Amino acid sequence: MEINTGAVSKPLIKVAAICGSIRKDSIHGGLIRSAIQICQEQSVPGMEIEYLDIKSLPFLNTDLEVDCTYPAAVTAFRKKIDDADAILFSSPEYNFSVTAPLKNAIDWGSRPPNVWADKAAAVMSAGGDFGGGRAQYDLRKIGVFVDLHFINKPQLCIQAYTPPTKFDGEGNLIDPVTKDKLRLLLLALQSFSLRMKGVSI
Amino acid sequence: MEINTGAVSKPLIKVAAICGSIRKDSIHGGLIRSAIQICQEQSVPGMEIEYLDIKSLPFLNTDLEVDCTYPAAVTAFRKKIDDADAILFSSPEYNFSVTAPLKNAIDWGSRPPNVWADKAAAVMSAGGDFGGGRAQYDLRKIGVFVDLHFINKPQLCIQAYTPPTKFDGEGNLIDPVTKDKLRLLLLALQSFSLRMKGVSI
Amino acid sequence: MEINTGAVSKPLIKVAAICGSIRKDSIHGGLIRSAIQICQEQSVPGMEIEYLDIKSLPFLNTDLEVDCTYPAAVTAFRKKIDDADAILFSSPEYNFSVTAPLKNAIDWGSRPPNVWADKAAAVMSAGGDFGGGRAQYDLRKIGVFVDLHFINKPQLCIQAYTPPTKFDGEGNLIDPVTKDKLRLLLLALQSFSLRMKGVSI
Amino acid sequence: MEINTGAVSKPLIKVAAICGSIRKDSIHGGLIRSAIQICQEQSVPGMEIEYLDIKSLPFLNTDLEVDCTYPAAVTAFRKKIDDADAILFSSPEYNFSVTAPLKNAIDWGSRPPNVWADKAAAVMSAGGDFGGGRAQYDLRKIGVFVDLHFINKPQLCIQAYTPPTKFDGEGNLIDPVTKDKLRLLLLALQSFSLRMKGVSI
Repeated sequence: MEINTGAVSKPLIKVAAICGSIRKDSIHGGLIRSAIQICQEQSVPGMEIEYLDIKSLPFLNTDLEVDCTYPAAVTAFRKKIDDADAILFSSPEYNFSVTAPLKNAIDWGSRPPNVWADKAAAVMSAGGDFGGGRAQYDLRKIGVFVDLHFINKPQLCIQAYTPPTKFDGEGNLIDPVTKDKLRLLLLALQSFSLRMKGVSI
Repeated sequence: MEINTGAVSKPLIKVAAICGSIRKDSIHGGLIRSAIQICQEQSVPGMEIEYLDIKSLPFLNTDLEVDCTYPAAVTAFRKKIDDADAILFSSPEYNFSVTAPLKNAIDWGSRPPNVWADKAAAVMSAGGDFGGGRAQYDLRKIGVFVDLHFINKPQLCIQAYTPPTKFDGEGNLIDPVTKDKLRLLLLALQSFSLRMKGVSI
Repeated sequence: MEINTGAVSKPLIKVAAICGSIRKDSIHGGLIRSAIQICQEQSVPGMEIEYLDIKSLPFLNTDLEVDCTYPAAVTAFRKKIDDADAILFSSPEYNFSVTAPLKNAIDWGSRPPNVWADKAAAVMSAGGDFGGGRAQYDLRKIGVFVDLHFINKPQLCIQAYTPPTKFDGEGNLIDPVTKDKLRLLLLALQSFSLRMKGVSI
Repeated sequence: MEINTGAVSKPLIKVAAICGSIRKDSIHGGLIRSAIQICQEQSVPGMEIEYLDIKSLPFLNTDLEVDCTYPAAVTAFRKKIDDADAILFSSPEYNFSVTAPLKNAIDWGSRPPNVWADKAAAVMSAGGDFGGGRAQYDLRKIGVFVDLHFINKPQLCIQAYTPPTKFDGEGNLIDPVTKDKLRLLLLALQSFSLRMKGVSI
């Protein structure tokens, strides 16, 4: 599929977005909603983001796999990943690493056949002091084994509790400067995804 | 409480053991069962190990915390950790890092007040190539934030699929050489726990 | 520049190879010599490897930089990196991480303008137990900041002291099975380099 | 040796301090000078810090070892480490990891017999964004193999370029708030060192 954005014509990049927090008002959910809106407003033409649910996945347990069949929620999740060109992780840092729901989703996706293989990826995080930064390196290391290609730059580690106010009480991103940084992250992911797919732009 | 082991009298070290896999026949569960047996046979006098269940913990979600009260399974788990002197992790490596159930248990324990604080810890793993070794370093980094003191040596990374056969079909450790390595790990954990508690031996 | 290899014509990939050990008979030097030979024998047509010297680089010290000018050995090294399409690291593991000479070379290359930027890279290591594997993850993390794109697979961690004999007394790779694994690593680096450069093959 | 500080009498803790930067006006050198001054002013009674030189160490190269004899500068450095009770690292972050001179010093110290073994340690860093924080985790991982026992808390990552001014033009620490954080780090290192040595306080 191709879209025409005036001078440049390039294939649509479909992104699956995964939030490491399952809290209702998570600021990491807010980051994904903001990313979706940025694409819908055509601020990143040619990119489309879908927010995947991971709350309904059971804890990975290979006893649940019968004749190479996965639980229904797992199969649905895996299909969404398989259909995507790229992955956007919104990953809080819990105790210096990624969250359990995020690791669980990655582990289910890696069961044979590994649905993450050879896709482009980016990560964003928010938090105190390092803005969730420590978790990003663990995620990148996990990405080596599941064969994701993370963009190197920009790195988006949002200091969530430093003025100006970044998020409202429902976790929505309200700071325009941070929104612009998020847009640059999406542009970099788009560009890298196209390169990985062998599209000259 | 003190036990008398002949010439030396030292306090009993109570260890909480956590298995990162929730599979029925997990070899990591087998490692814990073997560690319990080693202590019961008095091969490590003065140490007692309890195998904690983590399967019943829900995914961490602070929306489940009402007035600083945790779900019942979480409270029971946290009490067990709080009562222990030391922690023994049996941690498989999934995609180069720790498993989701293990991370989830650690995250629940770290909610205020952090029940891991200032305890001694050890980790063992089994698997292909590095014997689960990569996950051990992520676990140690997580331990910095939750304030666990891991022993440095010995490191127990068991190559599970290299002859001789290490585990039977139900995940039980059957290799005497590996059992002896496990015993040395337990002795080191005991010694470090006593040092952390300020007991001269 | 293009080379003709029969049916397929693709640009020559120039690789700069860096050895983390400065010992005379280092097995990591042997790995690079073997990689060079593999390319010279046309087992990886279209790839050319140059073994860079890093022994002559002084310890990085920005006091040595005068008016943005680097010491002569540094300038020569930086030029070689700048001219290369891809980087091949042969990285021993010293105390669970990369060696000082290797880190030093990377740090000099990262001084402005960063000469590593946007190049493809691969790493190989040899050693006891994990075959140097732990150092590879630190190197990959360093690579994020200096903007290298490491291939994910294959991972080449050679158990140097396990039969059959892998290296002779001068550090030369003599094991044909390991040579073939090295060839697969080079093919993957070539393929990824071409993809990064936007060459369809 | 014991010192009398009024009510409490405890053994003197001798600390070897190592700076990862070899620049003349390094702020990491400034941190060590400040730590020394804090001890000399008796703000941490019972602790004494010596600033070790690592600039004169050659790059580690086992070809330089003849009959298990090390170069003279190496031997002198190793003796200083061996005599110390605890280690204080002042570690800049270069490209997300430790510097080459620091890794080199650690590697020389780890040559047989490993002079770091079983000592307490602490790390401090300064820098942009994460205040050098990423390098601290690599250092801690290296510490596992060389058998250092790092304190978990407090973590001192100084944002060097955020107001108020933290350092003067010669790298001296001039911010009283940061000096107080440094004092708390030293107190924690002292307390952990005494615990490791089995001294009840």
